[in-house]
Amino acid sequence: MNSKFIVIEGLEGAGKTTAIQTVVETLKQYGISDLTLTREPGGTPLAEKLRELIKQGIEGEPLTDKAEVLMLYAARVQLVENIIKPALSQGTWVVGDRHDLSSQAYQGGGRGIDQHLMESLREAALGDFYPDLTLYLDLPPEVGLQRACARGELDRIEKESLDFFHRTRTRYLELVTKDDSIKMIDAAQPLEKVQDNIRNILLNWLNEQEIQA
Amino acid sequence: MNSKFIVIEGLEGAGKTTAIQTVVETLKQYGISDLTLTREPGGTPLAEKLRELIKQGIEGEPLTDKAEVLMLYAARVQLVENIIKPALSQGTWVVGDRHDLSSQAYQGGGRGIDQHLMESLREAALGDFYPDLTLYLDLPPEVGLQRACARGELDRIEKESLDFFHRTRTRYLELVTKDDSIKMIDAAQPLEKVQDNIRNILLNWLNEQEIQA
Repeated sequence: MNSKFIVIEGLEGAGKTTAIQTVVETLKQYGISDLTLTREPGGTPLAEKLRELIKQGIEGEPLTDKAEVLMLYAARVQLVENIIKPALSQGTWVVGDRHDLSSQAYQGGGRGIDQHLMESLREAALGDFYPDLTLYLDLPPEVGLQRACARGELDRIEKESLDFFHRTRTRYLELVTKDDSIKMIDAAQPLEKVQDNIRNILLNWLNEQEIQA
Repeated sequence: MNSKFIVIEGLEGAGKTTAIQTVVETLKQYGISDLTLTREPGGTPLAEKLRELIKQGIEGEPLTDKAEVLMLYAARVQLVENIIKPALSQGTWVVGDRHDLSSQAYQGGGRGIDQHLMESLREAALGDFYPDLTLYLDLPPEVGLQRACARGELDRIEKESLDFFHRTRTRYLELVTKDDSIKMIDAAQPLEKVQDNIRNILLNWLNEQEIQA
């Protein structure tokens, strides 16, 4: 099958929503219009319930880092098995608002969960399933948080300390250098420049893939 | 600290509720009255929400085996970190209606989830935390399911095939032979006999522990 799974990643306020629009428009211009959009955590009824528990927490009960990451992977397995894999096998392209790289960065980097545990969980939950292309929008946490704050009330994770987001960004940057399928975009540039970068990277990649639209 | 974590395990209908009463009475007669009772999955507000999702499932969405086991471990981490460990460290005994052995038997045995994955998950979620004593009530699945049916409507897991429960029991029996802290009780005996066995095993074990009540 020719269909691919493309993921948009980045810190809060990095501009993922606009980037997804640019990706979808570029794909359509390229002749790829059979698309499914997903978001993580979430994207299935059960995964959305888990998303709410993760994002809002439970009044009066500390959510442990380990339970958080286990719930994230439970939600991800539901989405991958029930939505993403069936879509791909029917020839539908999937564009994801976050995927596994977020857990590696936020829980592995930000929370400091043991690297070996993160790898075991990924392997256990997803096996050899990976996105075909990931666009990582890089931005200093200070800038991203300012944008996210301006949008309104912050959730449990968005309320983390600046240090947490610095550790998360550092892990993102480490992982970008290790994986050719992750392309970094400087999200601190003016919006039009960011959109141009996304379009160019995506078109280059599409041409390399020899996609038959 | 002298406080201990005692777990009751077994298939549906094996008589866990009565066994827990017997354990609590025996502990009290022994002078141990500072007790916390837990049940799994569940036992904290978040873990109870996960229990409901696991037991009832979500209308129209298949719950994958992997998401099920990840949610079970998320619930377990919350219970262990927020309830069981704090109780034990304050000198309170804990008596659990199911714990990790259930996942090993039901998900590892019944569902057939890879043994290596089950071990990684246990290690990742719980590290070196184990019950001090587990009482496993052994019963042929046919008998247990008949009893469970007589009690009323069955949940998602109780509706599994007889084969599933045979595989679960087989795994329970394998694990019993590997771990001295798990004591097996023949739950097919008349109720009084079962209660006598539980009392005797527990009293012997208490005497060995040199508990200062």
